[in-house]
Amino acid sequence: MVYITRKERFNAAHKLFREEWSDERNLEVFGKCSNPNWHGHNYELFITVKGEPEPTTGFVIDLKILSQIIREKVIDKLDHRNVNLDVDFMKGKMASTEILAIAIWEQIAAPIERQGCYLHSVKLFETENNFVEYFGGN
Amino acid sequence: MVYITRKERFNAAHKLFREEWSDERNLEVFGKCSNPNWHGHNYELFITVKGEPEPTTGFVIDLKILSQIIREKVIDKLDHRNVNLDVDFMKGKMASTEILAIAIWEQIAAPIERQGCYLHSVKLFETENNFVEYFGGN
Amino acid sequence: MVYITRKERFNAAHKLFREEWSDERNLEVFGKCSNPNWHGHNYELFITVKGEPEPTTGFVIDLKILSQIIREKVIDKLDHRNVNLDVDFMKGKMASTEILAIAIWEQIAAPIERQGCYLHSVKLFETENNFVEYFGGN
Amino acid sequence: MVYITRKERFNAAHKLFREEWSDERNLEVFGKCSNPNWHGHNYELFITVKGEPEPTTGFVIDLKILSQIIREKVIDKLDHRNVNLDVDFMKGKMASTEILAIAIWEQIAAPIERQGCYLHSVKLFETENNFVEYFGGN
Amino acid sequence: MVYITRKERFNAAHKLFREEWSDERNLEVFGKCSNPNWHGHNYELFITVKGEPEPTTGFVIDLKILSQIIREKVIDKLDHRNVNLDVDFMKGKMASTEILAIAIWEQIAAPIERQGCYLHSVKLFETENNFVEYFGGN
Amino acid sequence: MVYITRKERFNAAHKLFREEWSDERNLEVFGKCSNPNWHGHNYELFITVKGEPEPTTGFVIDLKILSQIIREKVIDKLDHRNVNLDVDFMKGKMASTEILAIAIWEQIAAPIERQGCYLHSVKLFETENNFVEYFGGN
Repeated sequence: MVYITRKERFNAAHKLFREEWSDERNLEVFGKCSNPNWHGHNYELFITVKGEPEPTTGFVIDLKILSQIIREKVIDKLDHRNVNLDVDFMKGKMASTEILAIAIWEQIAAPIERQGCYLHSVKLFETENNFVEYFGGN
Repeated sequence: MVYITRKERFNAAHKLFREEWSDERNLEVFGKCSNPNWHGHNYELFITVKGEPEPTTGFVIDLKILSQIIREKVIDKLDHRNVNLDVDFMKGKMASTEILAIAIWEQIAAPIERQGCYLHSVKLFETENNFVEYFGGN
Repeated sequence: MVYITRKERFNAAHKLFREEWSDERNLEVFGKCSNPNWHGHNYELFITVKGEPEPTTGFVIDLKILSQIIREKVIDKLDHRNVNLDVDFMKGKMASTEILAIAIWEQIAAPIERQGCYLHSVKLFETENNFVEYFGGN
Repeated sequence: MVYITRKERFNAAHKLFREEWSDERNLEVFGKCSNPNWHGHNYELFITVKGEPEPTTGFVIDLKILSQIIREKVIDKLDHRNVNLDVDFMKGKMASTEILAIAIWEQIAAPIERQGCYLHSVKLFETENNFVEYFGGN
Repeated sequence: MVYITRKERFNAAHKLFREEWSDERNLEVFGKCSNPNWHGHNYELFITVKGEPEPTTGFVIDLKILSQIIREKVIDKLDHRNVNLDVDFMKGKMASTEILAIAIWEQIAAPIERQGCYLHSVKLFETENNFVEYFGGN
Repeated sequence: MVYITRKERFNAAHKLFREEWSDERNLEVFGKCSNPNWHGHNYELFITVKGEPEPTTGFVIDLKILSQIIREKVIDKLDHRNVNLDVDFMKGKMASTEILAIAIWEQIAAPIERQGCYLHSVKLFETENNFVEYFGGN
């Protein structure tokens, strides 16, 4: 087994809040991340795929195809968008880094498997100081 | 003359648009940066001050004081905010990196001079690929 | 399970030496790291916690609380200190990155578990070229 | 068990191609990576070793020895070289990052074990956006 | 005046040598950079443009246009190429970072001026430890 | 004129204090940087040299020679040392980044001029957030 990782980036706005809560309650729980007029990040996304290198090419997966899957399923929907408002696969969910990483996994696991290898992990940096990793549901 | 630089960071939402233009015209000129529901960045800010080191301390400026000026005048107003909506010194201005760098200069030049040294430059990264530098108005 | 990581930093002096050895023997084993008058590093510390996201907040752990635990138990004791002389939990131990990473684990594992999640790893960079990871004692 | 990692670097030329294929077929499969006159990278290599810290020194492995093994067995053969043409342990192999990472593992696993610890992983960055990890053959 | 910088990247092979010299003489002067079978780098290129922000957009230059100029005139000719063999504007020149930076300036200064602003500097990283800056011929 | 920069690193201990002051006064002025038992940093040093590229080699300065000057005059004296106690050219001086950058300039300006080019600047990072630049005495 060899693991190969592709890094992609997106810039998005979000906030952490619950609609059914008051602004005060949101501020108490989520702090400045609950700013009603949003804030944003340069997210960095590392997608790791595992498999055997294909003997003819020496590739676990063609990185052009991996990059294309990530861009079509994830980046094009998130980049220069509002995570809470603009992204179909985040509708009705908290826009925390944890929940966003799980949702990204769900977008790309199947298309990657169709390439004959496996999604191993989604690693998502919100800032240089905070990041989340998800290795799937089992 | 010695030049000393302090790096600070803020995470903010913004968009590039002109209210008097249609969404189509904004999209044409500003591309995906005009997304109506905002997007955002992890901005990185480098403030450079010049002066002679004070003989007793060896300091051009006490970095605790420099950091405090930047935080009070700039970071506290921008961090986890919306550049277009929440920031007093950006009201009525384009939220481009260029205009934001000039506005940051105007917030901190005078308080830094009161410390017996000079603001030399404001360097502002919007992303790892794009940054602006401003050296003052003359 | 989701894994979330918080990065913190501290600047500290240390040396590698055994008191019962001569300077020559220390130099032979530890090289320039045994310099009697100390040397130092900008350490970078990555603490990874694992757990299920709490449904209301979408958080594995509130990062403000995680950061506070790390600062109180680790950073406040190490930052701008001498690892060999000033740090209660390093008394009588070698100030190697390996031993320091294990000692940091011991400071924070219990307080993190009291938040309803688990400490997964301590990753400690001494320089950009050398780092250590510790995943606990079993 | 503690894991310790050493980062080394090398700058090398390579191309992705199969000699038995035409230039057109190589271009179709490997894209611009098949440029007949080569291209190159600043590779970054992270070697992770695991073991128990030795009680007298606090070391899993002396990093001077680990660095010396990596330099002698890997860096000296790859740095400022052509991966396809100049490197004995890559003769007859595809110069993909995957195959190169496996080949590096084979060069250093035995000498590291002779130091009383275990090679855990080879992590090889081709660019800041693409890297491969290999954890051995079982 | 405001200064704005765009970062682009290219991966290329090169060597330092003079055809009229023997391999021994080349090795003596250029060291391992003269390896006959080439070596390569992940070059990082920072192009800085200066001008007044245009009042309607707040832009010194539209970064999409700047990026397009750099890509068309520089990156498309250098990326995944051999600097010595494949690049029209480097024919007959030493492939040192200094000479390459000057040659890049000559490719982009005029097209940037046609956008109503000025090329200020070309900054070219060969490795993380070595870079060159060029500010034009006067 | 072309500007070329070489990055080197050193790890050192230091403290900020005046011997004639009490510990309390030192703490008041220098904060935690006055810790009596020292602290330390991974310093990063960027030395910029300017000149005309030599036509035969395309070099402003041979980087092997520049690196050798920096190592002999600066790094060998500072690396794994105590800036206040172990470094001849810092005796009797404040170990601030400003004063250290000036002292480094004085060590290397003359040897660099003997190579037929000019020292342009010394840039010294104490941490990722704080750095100093010095351009010489006039």
